[in-house]
Amino acid sequence: NSKLKIFSLNGNPALAEEIAGYVGIPLGKCSVKSFSDGEVQINIEESIRGCDVFIVQPTSNPVNEHLMELLIMIDALKRASAATINVLMPYYGYARQDRKARSREPITAKLVADMIEKAGADRVIALDLHAPQIQGFFNIPIDHLMGVPILSDYFLGKHDIDLAETVVVSPDHGGVTRARKMADRLKAPIAIIDKRRPKPNVAEVMNIVGDINGKTAIIIDDIIDTAGTITLAAQALIDKGAKEVYACCTHPVLSGPAYERIEGSAIKELVVTNSIVLPEANRPAKIKQLSVGELLAQAIIRVYEQESVSVLFD
Amino acid sequence: NSKLKIFSLNGNPALAEEIAGYVGIPLGKCSVKSFSDGEVQINIEESIRGCDVFIVQPTSNPVNEHLMELLIMIDALKRASAATINVLMPYYGYARQDRKARSREPITAKLVADMIEKAGADRVIALDLHAPQIQGFFNIPIDHLMGVPILSDYFLGKHDIDLAETVVVSPDHGGVTRARKMADRLKAPIAIIDKRRPKPNVAEVMNIVGDINGKTAIIIDDIIDTAGTITLAAQALIDKGAKEVYACCTHPVLSGPAYERIEGSAIKELVVTNSIVLPEANRPAKIKQLSVGELLAQAIIRVYEQESVSVLFD
Ligand SMILES: Nc1ncnc2c1ncn2[C@@H]1O[C@H](COP(=O)(O)O)[C@@H](O)[C@H]1O
Ligand SMILES: Nc1ncnc2c1ncn2[C@@H]1O[C@H](COP(=O)(O)O)[C@@H](O)[C@H]1O
Repeated sequence: NSKLKIFSLNGNPALAEEIAGYVGIPLGKCSVKSFSDGEVQINIEESIRGCDVFIVQPTSNPVNEHLMELLIMIDALKRASAATINVLMPYYGYARQDRKARSREPITAKLVADMIEKAGADRVIALDLHAPQIQGFFNIPIDHLMGVPILSDYFLGKHDIDLAETVVVSPDHGGVTRARKMADRLKAPIAIIDKRRPKPNVAEVMNIVGDINGKTAIIIDDIIDTAGTITLAAQALIDKGAKEVYACCTHPVLSGPAYERIEGSAIKELVVTNSIVLPEANRPAKIKQLSVGELLAQAIIRVYEQESVSVLFD
Repeated sequence: NSKLKIFSLNGNPALAEEIAGYVGIPLGKCSVKSFSDGEVQINIEESIRGCDVFIVQPTSNPVNEHLMELLIMIDALKRASAATINVLMPYYGYARQDRKARSREPITAKLVADMIEKAGADRVIALDLHAPQIQGFFNIPIDHLMGVPILSDYFLGKHDIDLAETVVVSPDHGGVTRARKMADRLKAPIAIIDKRRPKPNVAEVMNIVGDINGKTAIIIDDIIDTAGTITLAAQALIDKGAKEVYACCTHPVLSGPAYERIEGSAIKELVVTNSIVLPEANRPAKIKQLSVGELLAQAIIRVYEQESVSVLFD
């Protein structure tokens, strides 16, 4: 086997450190800065010739910066004769632009896949892609990890909620499969927030399909961005008789008004992972961050040892 | 012929307006904004099916933002069935990362070329690439325009300098060909700033090769970034007996301390083009900005009419 090296860019250095710790090797030495004019400047400060290299980089905000760092790093590694270049993206930016919903829209998630491939990546490891179809945007192998087991295990170990009186809630029609997966693990039923707009320019109505009365509701989503949907969903659940509402997601994008909305919402606790770094300033205490470090470290080891990755969440 | 459309992204809307004005058509309607989490959101607001589309976008600071806008726009145009997608880049960001100067360096200028091509561009029109070899990074046609004629014409029309007593100065060995081109137009001799470092960690010595004593010196470069080189060169010329020093370049990157350095320098006037937008705040009055709008408009018309572009600067 070639030598294993793990490098971090600026996306999530703390997570990369944690991963390297689990794998049991130090992070590779490189500096990732900007020139005076804002262009990305990368220096790889150790030889990687013939190595199996893993780059840890979520393309979270600032997404264009983080994506260019990733592409430039791949280019540099390729030219420095890495044996294989493996891209570990705990968060895949632009994943929501995965189809033409309207005329003349780009499909940026596919563009990003093409860029990563063209730059010279040999393999991608991703976590909870917004749509599993994004795997098909790549012509190189992609391993798709899931956040559901980690989120579920947290609730399974939480002794102040009564799992027999719990219901897992999908905040929209698109998330029902994910809610079903979590419900299986919690041995709980599911419910669905069934939003619809009776007429154009009329406020949406939030119906709830499923029994939530007197129950602990756990809303699950893949991404929480401005937190508008999730906080409205939580209020609707309380209004319709839920006893208490938890929320969870893999990727806490939490942009714009998200912190204030969560703080002021009916959500008792919001459980997320550390796929994305969360700014400390004004962070609501009710946000609980779980680590995907060990999961991702195991994925690296299994890919490196050429073993199946799917066992990690089957 | 298909219909001609010109779109501007956020790189240099004023220049794009000017170009469209010369071509005699309004700019195409599109909105280029960010989602709450910083991802680029592009809406093309008119049909471009079957059209020859030109995108005006210098990839100046913020370079990663401007580059992603460009790539996403190309993707959207391709999916919206444009007949041809032509990318007009008055400034090509990352052009200085055009070779491996040290081990394990990326060649980002080539990466950018690959990205533009892979996204779906059919042709590129560029202005004064840092190295003409960057043309070879593309497998699609690229037209390479020159700023020298515009800069030279300015000095030819300037009646307060005596062209018979003028010398064109290259600030380094790499720029001599460019200085020679300008000198031909001004019918002036050339001089070269011959920097060398006698020993490592010893200050550089600036020798001047050529006769500058009592003369008006015009330094020419392609890019002025932090303005360190150019202001030191100007001082060296004055110290060695030049009567006065002008400087000019095509691309005023002018990052970091550039404005203060130019303000406080021996440079009498700095002549640049509008390939890059210059912030107004604290801009030294001695910076004179010439327009490349008409040149670029003529290039668009000639490409559209399938005529040779090289006549524009032969
Ligand atoms: N960064 C973003 N922030 C908000 N909305 C987005 C973003 N990227 C894409 N979208 C939109 O979100 C929709 C996809 O979301 P979904 O229906 O949940 O798959 C698309 O119609 C996109 O136009
Ligand atoms: N944006 C930038 N700012 C400053 N230096 C750069 C930049 N991009 C590349 N370089 C460096 O500049 C050198 C190329 O400049 P030159 O010798 O003028 O062609 C390379 O060695 C690069 O490492």
